[in-house]
Amino acid sequence: MPKISTRLFSGAKHRVSKKVGMPPGSLIHIGEDHSRETEISLISYGARGVETRILDSVDALSHYQAGDAITWLNIVGLADIKAIEAIGQHFDIHRLVLEDILNTHQRPKCEHHDSFIYLVLTSLVIPEPGADRTVIQGLKSGIQYQQVSILLLDRFVITFEESASSALGHITQRLSNSSGRFRSQGSDYLAYEILDSIVDQYFEYEEYMAEQIDDIEEELLINPTSDTLIRIQRLKRELIKIRRVISPLRELLNGLLRSDSPLIHAGTAIYLRDVFDHCLRITEMLDSYRDMTTGLLDIYISSISNRMNEIMKVLTIFASIFIPLTFITGIYGMNFDAMPELHWPWAYPALWGLFIGISGGLLVYFKRKHWL
Amino acid sequence: MPKISTRLFSGAKHRVSKKVGMPPGSLIHIGEDHSRETEISLISYGARGVETRILDSVDALSHYQAGDAITWLNIVGLADIKAIEAIGQHFDIHRLVLEDILNTHQRPKCEHHDSFIYLVLTSLVIPEPGADRTVIQGLKSGIQYQQVSILLLDRFVITFEESASSALGHITQRLSNSSGRFRSQGSDYLAYEILDSIVDQYFEYEEYMAEQIDDIEEELLINPTSDTLIRIQRLKRELIKIRRVISPLRELLNGLLRSDSPLIHAGTAIYLRDVFDHCLRITEMLDSYRDMTTGLLDIYISSISNRMNEIMKVLTIFASIFIPLTFITGIYGMNFDAMPELHWPWAYPALWGLFIGISGGLLVYFKRKHWL
Amino acid sequence: MPKISTRLFSGAKHRVSKKVGMPPGSLIHIGEDHSRETEISLISYGARGVETRILDSVDALSHYQAGDAITWLNIVGLADIKAIEAIGQHFDIHRLVLEDILNTHQRPKCEHHDSFIYLVLTSLVIPEPGADRTVIQGLKSGIQYQQVSILLLDRFVITFEESASSALGHITQRLSNSSGRFRSQGSDYLAYEILDSIVDQYFEYEEYMAEQIDDIEEELLINPTSDTLIRIQRLKRELIKIRRVISPLRELLNGLLRSDSPLIHAGTAIYLRDVFDHCLRITEMLDSYRDMTTGLLDIYISSISNRMNEIMKVLTIFASIFIPLTFITGIYGMNFDAMPELHWPWAYPALWGLFIGISGGLLVYFKRKHWL
Amino acid sequence: MPKISTRLFSGAKHRVSKKVGMPPGSLIHIGEDHSRETEISLISYGARGVETRILDSVDALSHYQAGDAITWLNIVGLADIKAIEAIGQHFDIHRLVLEDILNTHQRPKCEHHDSFIYLVLTSLVIPEPGADRTVIQGLKSGIQYQQVSILLLDRFVITFEESASSALGHITQRLSNSSGRFRSQGSDYLAYEILDSIVDQYFEYEEYMAEQIDDIEEELLINPTSDTLIRIQRLKRELIKIRRVISPLRELLNGLLRSDSPLIHAGTAIYLRDVFDHCLRITEMLDSYRDMTTGLLDIYISSISNRMNEIMKVLTIFASIFIPLTFITGIYGMNFDAMPELHWPWAYPALWGLFIGISGGLLVYFKRKHWL
Amino acid sequence: MPKISTRLFSGAKHRVSKKVGMPPGSLIHIGEDHSRETEISLISYGARGVETRILDSVDALSHYQAGDAITWLNIVGLADIKAIEAIGQHFDIHRLVLEDILNTHQRPKCEHHDSFIYLVLTSLVIPEPGADRTVIQGLKSGIQYQQVSILLLDRFVITFEESASSALGHITQRLSNSSGRFRSQGSDYLAYEILDSIVDQYFEYEEYMAEQIDDIEEELLINPTSDTLIRIQRLKRELIKIRRVISPLRELLNGLLRSDSPLIHAGTAIYLRDVFDHCLRITEMLDSYRDMTTGLLDIYISSISNRMNEIMKVLTIFASIFIPLTFITGIYGMNFDAMPELHWPWAYPALWGLFIGISGGLLVYFKRKHWL
Repeated sequence: MPKISTRLFSGAKHRVSKKVGMPPGSLIHIGEDHSRETEISLISYGARGVETRILDSVDALSHYQAGDAITWLNIVGLADIKAIEAIGQHFDIHRLVLEDILNTHQRPKCEHHDSFIYLVLTSLVIPEPGADRTVIQGLKSGIQYQQVSILLLDRFVITFEESASSALGHITQRLSNSSGRFRSQGSDYLAYEILDSIVDQYFEYEEYMAEQIDDIEEELLINPTSDTLIRIQRLKRELIKIRRVISPLRELLNGLLRSDSPLIHAGTAIYLRDVFDHCLRITEMLDSYRDMTTGLLDIYISSISNRMNEIMKVLTIFASIFIPLTFITGIYGMNFDAMPELHWPWAYPALWGLFIGISGGLLVYFKRKHWL
Repeated sequence: MPKISTRLFSGAKHRVSKKVGMPPGSLIHIGEDHSRETEISLISYGARGVETRILDSVDALSHYQAGDAITWLNIVGLADIKAIEAIGQHFDIHRLVLEDILNTHQRPKCEHHDSFIYLVLTSLVIPEPGADRTVIQGLKSGIQYQQVSILLLDRFVITFEESASSALGHITQRLSNSSGRFRSQGSDYLAYEILDSIVDQYFEYEEYMAEQIDDIEEELLINPTSDTLIRIQRLKRELIKIRRVISPLRELLNGLLRSDSPLIHAGTAIYLRDVFDHCLRITEMLDSYRDMTTGLLDIYISSISNRMNEIMKVLTIFASIFIPLTFITGIYGMNFDAMPELHWPWAYPALWGLFIGISGGLLVYFKRKHWL
Repeated sequence: MPKISTRLFSGAKHRVSKKVGMPPGSLIHIGEDHSRETEISLISYGARGVETRILDSVDALSHYQAGDAITWLNIVGLADIKAIEAIGQHFDIHRLVLEDILNTHQRPKCEHHDSFIYLVLTSLVIPEPGADRTVIQGLKSGIQYQQVSILLLDRFVITFEESASSALGHITQRLSNSSGRFRSQGSDYLAYEILDSIVDQYFEYEEYMAEQIDDIEEELLINPTSDTLIRIQRLKRELIKIRRVISPLRELLNGLLRSDSPLIHAGTAIYLRDVFDHCLRITEMLDSYRDMTTGLLDIYISSISNRMNEIMKVLTIFASIFIPLTFITGIYGMNFDAMPELHWPWAYPALWGLFIGISGGLLVYFKRKHWL
Repeated sequence: MPKISTRLFSGAKHRVSKKVGMPPGSLIHIGEDHSRETEISLISYGARGVETRILDSVDALSHYQAGDAITWLNIVGLADIKAIEAIGQHFDIHRLVLEDILNTHQRPKCEHHDSFIYLVLTSLVIPEPGADRTVIQGLKSGIQYQQVSILLLDRFVITFEESASSALGHITQRLSNSSGRFRSQGSDYLAYEILDSIVDQYFEYEEYMAEQIDDIEEELLINPTSDTLIRIQRLKRELIKIRRVISPLRELLNGLLRSDSPLIHAGTAIYLRDVFDHCLRITEMLDSYRDMTTGLLDIYISSISNRMNEIMKVLTIFASIFIPLTFITGIYGMNFDAMPELHWPWAYPALWGLFIGISGGLLVYFKRKHWL
Repeated sequence: MPKISTRLFSGAKHRVSKKVGMPPGSLIHIGEDHSRETEISLISYGARGVETRILDSVDALSHYQAGDAITWLNIVGLADIKAIEAIGQHFDIHRLVLEDILNTHQRPKCEHHDSFIYLVLTSLVIPEPGADRTVIQGLKSGIQYQQVSILLLDRFVITFEESASSALGHITQRLSNSSGRFRSQGSDYLAYEILDSIVDQYFEYEEYMAEQIDDIEEELLINPTSDTLIRIQRLKRELIKIRRVISPLRELLNGLLRSDSPLIHAGTAIYLRDVFDHCLRITEMLDSYRDMTTGLLDIYISSISNRMNEIMKVLTIFASIFIPLTFITGIYGMNFDAMPELHWPWAYPALWGLFIGISGGLLVYFKRKHWL
């Protein structure tokens, strides 16, 4: 078995240790991607149109705080702590929230604050169907996890991610193309759209998992190797991991649905309920995949036992046939003076007959036992 | 082992991917059966009688909206999105509901809207008892799942299915034959009848599963092969799958029972409670089948081990008897000058006595160990 | 392994299929015992005395509806649908309730109706301790299940069963012998007595299961065969089945205890609470038996592995001792011209010493490995 | 394997059957210890002092019902039903409660009655650490269970047990030695002290279990035998059994804590809360022991497999080395006329070289495979 | 296998037995570290500055009870019962609380008293990453558990620990360095800081566990030995143990969050909620590690089976090739007078051809079966 790096957590090392002993509210970026520059893009839209720009300084924000337009601030890259702190101060965000935004290992949750709602969840990047499977197999599961933080304010939505994800890209496009329906809604609808596009990715994930299960199943039925076991375990782990990502989402959405915050308009509830249903559905799907993976393991273990049976059968057939025959040859290889059979002329051919008879008889016996 | 296509999800591929990146409320038919033409049949009934017709255009509906009669609109085939959109507009159905109707992978649920209640659940088609089992075995489990959407309005019930199911067929028949009792009830009773006939199918399913368990059990006790393991796993999966279909039903029915909607009359509650009890019963049955399936797996695994024991016994008996004997023949096959036994005249027959004695003794020993 | 009919459900086939496609409330007897005649016995009791008679016609009931006496109507045998329908009409019982009474596969439940409470549960018949175990083993578990329906009305209790059970027999006897205390109570106390005597049977069942576990355990420690596995699985199934029968009882009793129905008097609550405690106790006992059964399975599986080890040891000891010795005899059976040892006079006896030395050494080695 | 009596329930047989068919409230002593005489001891204490006496007749109790003193009546031995019935009548105890006191297989519970609270739980006797383990191993687990019933009245506490337990003995002693604090409290504090001393025994039990786990673990790592498996299963069962005893205690204590009965004074709540915490702790400890026992089983099963591997290795090494060598000796034992090697003078020593070469090569090969 | 002391609880023996039979509220130190002297350090801080001193006598405390400063009393070492009793009396702490502080095996909990809140939880010491792993492996897991008791009073926080932990050390340092924010908060904020620093250690623990899982995984894929199994079980146990430590924390924090005590200020809630989220996160992480550990066990067990397969293959290949060949040599070693083949001059070389042919054929056969 080649040495494969199967470390699941290697990248995550020292992620918390950095902070041990520091006061709460210390702003340190605890994530994987430190090199990436922080980019703040702004989309402001309303009945009149859509304006898109890259923001250099937080000061420019004041311009957008007046008027009816909804403004979406998307921060990509979390290395520039100063910039994030500036945004935090501008919108009066609690330091513990900023700490959570920067520490990209949060449990999905929904926090109600006085002037804003803080949502944090995880978006996924699933490898392309065409991607080389063997490569993915070697290096973990090939699925990338990324924390997305959403601050929902009165007419602002601020999102934070470590690198640009396709989920948010879709929405930008839709906003530009949209003919009014989207643009006439409030900031809560924008937040819903973001949640919805992230949850949609989970369905892609679920399909990917279904494919993996199918693949492994086929492998199991044709030629199970010890690599198959590794794949099953990898799948199992992936499902353990995703549950940590998805199961708190129901709570998050419940937090929004049952909220009496003026930030959530009555009309948005039906949309949030829809995302909630999707979450339920995906959770149940993934739970059933877990059970299936256990089934795969059972098949693997039985297939090992079956193979052992087959090996033992071959050994037993060979040994059981030839050991008695060899015993007979041993008898007539003895050097006793008085062995009358040795001098009978037809003894040797008769013995051949006996050999064939014994082996034939044993073969019939094994045939009846379904060993052949 | 022949290569069997055991893909459970193959047909379901790309089902969601199509929609990723699209705005919510986009009406796309995500189901298996695209070729089927959409057929809208209408049954209007009341104290006076029953009228059945095939509807060409939605406009004809206005005629039925006046008066006391209850009208049942059954849409079979979901490919004609235009027609469905027209119905949606006519009855003022929210776009997200239409989206759910068209996307036939919904989790069973009950949604209360202002003027209607939306129910979605799954009906089953179980293969005929006489159907060739081996064919079913090769291709998944032979059970077909179909989403049924029910819109319950004031004097209207609208159902959507991909292909005509026998469950709804029964009700049509009963309506025509009914001598008043059925026809004097409101639209909620019609919805109950539809739910009840779908749940009745689950009992058929449950019987089918019981038969499968019996069959496998018999196979296990007579001649377990690796195919038996595949059958057990298939059964297990089917039970995993059905749970996703049935377990949310209790919630759905609770939603109806606890509803204070004017659409549900007090008199219907006892009927809904009855369906609820059926759901509980079926859920408990299927849960116990799951446990039984685990028991089947235990028997399978033990039977493999038992067989290994049997093979090992045969090998050990053969080897243990003949190896010592062969050793003795080896002794007297040696060419030493000074081997006095070789010249004793009764040595050879005495040796035969020894051979028989040793093998007899070992046979008695193995008999005592219950190996024979 | 002989072919044993292990079908658990064979008798239950077609039990539901009959009803598929029929309108709800259709009265069809779905049970096993169709041949049995329906017998309606009546016991009327009060402070003054006890009257027992067999009822021919429902009309005679009017006589008992006046006055203070409590009347118990016990219907044994459900084949005569007409008679049951007549009773239903006489006491104004909802058709769905009658349907449940006739369909003897109900989940235990408690339904509150306007003028009566409907209780349905399952009574057991446990085979006599002296009954031939091997017969029971061949045909399922020997335990018979029977549905008992109880209608609790103001001064009436109506019970329905398929065949006369000992549980109800005890009560009849007690009523006749009772010196007032029993007879001075209302109809709810009679219903309690019926529930209590059915639950008492579950304790008999529990003892029977405990005995079975003990038996199997003994078998496992002395001589486990593949029949032992069948027995363990049978036990496990029986425990799966009984849970479906017993676990809903708590709910049923809670339904009675929390009821504000005038049919339940305050003084009866303490008795119902007692039955509730019994149910809790029996449920916990049976849960622990489930865990024990899993333990039995673990012992069985380990005992198979242990036996394999033992077989392998015998083989290895035989082969390891004789194979080297045979090799040595092979050496001196070779026909080389130049083999000086062959001509040494003490070579042959010396070789015997070597044979004994090698086998003795190996025996000591195996002894040290605890293989002997 | 010697036949060990492992019957867990043997003593418990017929415990319920006795009562089947009897009316509720029938007073029959259903316990193990019928021979023991019933002894009623009385301790009356107050600010002024402690009085201890053995009670001959219930009539003497009237004396203690006046005044401020708290009286503790301890009934040891339940065979004298008359005496217990007399006490019941004296204090107006419901017959169902008396029935529960006599039937010593109750589930721990707390019942609130008008004038008293009825508590029933189980006390344990753990074998001394120095006791001969092998004896304990042979006969079940050596742990004795005993039901303790507590009736808490206004200024009376009445306890019932089958034999004198050390738990209650401690309290008697403490009462005599106590310098006021204990004696100034009400009857509810006495009941708390009794509960507390019984729960303290569970900690002894828990320690005993921890020791057992340690012992088995050591046995597993040094020399696992099939007896080890029996010990593991015994432990598992004991943990299954104790859970039935301990887990309802939380409910019992909750019943006391949430009670608004005047029998429970506000000041006692903190003490009851303390016992409640102990119960929680012990429950969690025992739950974790269950998980550990599963771990022990895994080690046992792997150790069997490991041993099998070892046996197979020995066999394979012996067979693989000597079988090829024996084949070679077979070749030169053939009697062909034309075998030139036989006449080469250095052939025989060369063959010895070959023998050594082959076996050396194979030993190196097995060494590399880590089989040696 | 060397005898390793794997006793998990050895140190914990007799911990409770000491107290059995003693009255509740008896102050006895039940912990491991009796030798350590008790040291009482005091930190008093406020807007004006920080004062640190070692306290010799409890009398000096009165000085700090006046004024606005917050005082933190840290008691390290619990052997000096007198001193602790004195503190208890000074602050009017209930004896049961003092008993809990001294008995260092408490379940984490939060108790609300009239004038203070009592918190008890467990802090961890994780071995340094550089520490010698083999040593840790031999002696349990190397992780040390220590009980921390926190008494939260109006302007006092009193902590009790058996030995100085780094968690509390960090806070002392931070208090000294802090520029006001910390120092301006109340005693509840100090309690929060203590809780937070203890929970932070759990993240270190979680990282340590992740590393252990990675290590074992690597070991499993490269060269699994029976030591690997011991490591897996050790990990599993550690996870069982930590759950008892962490899972009650949620309840503890809920107790604080839902408290209406004047000791908890509104502004502290957001901080406590943050710790609560951390607890949730760590609990979910550790739950998923449990599942992973089960996966490791599955890999271990399969790897043993795989190895057995490999051993069997070697044996079968050797035996199956040489046993038939040896039979052939046996034939021509027989001493029959009439064996024509023996006199054919090309018979011997032809036989060599046969030998090579048979073994070649078998090798091809095994190759096809993927045994080579």
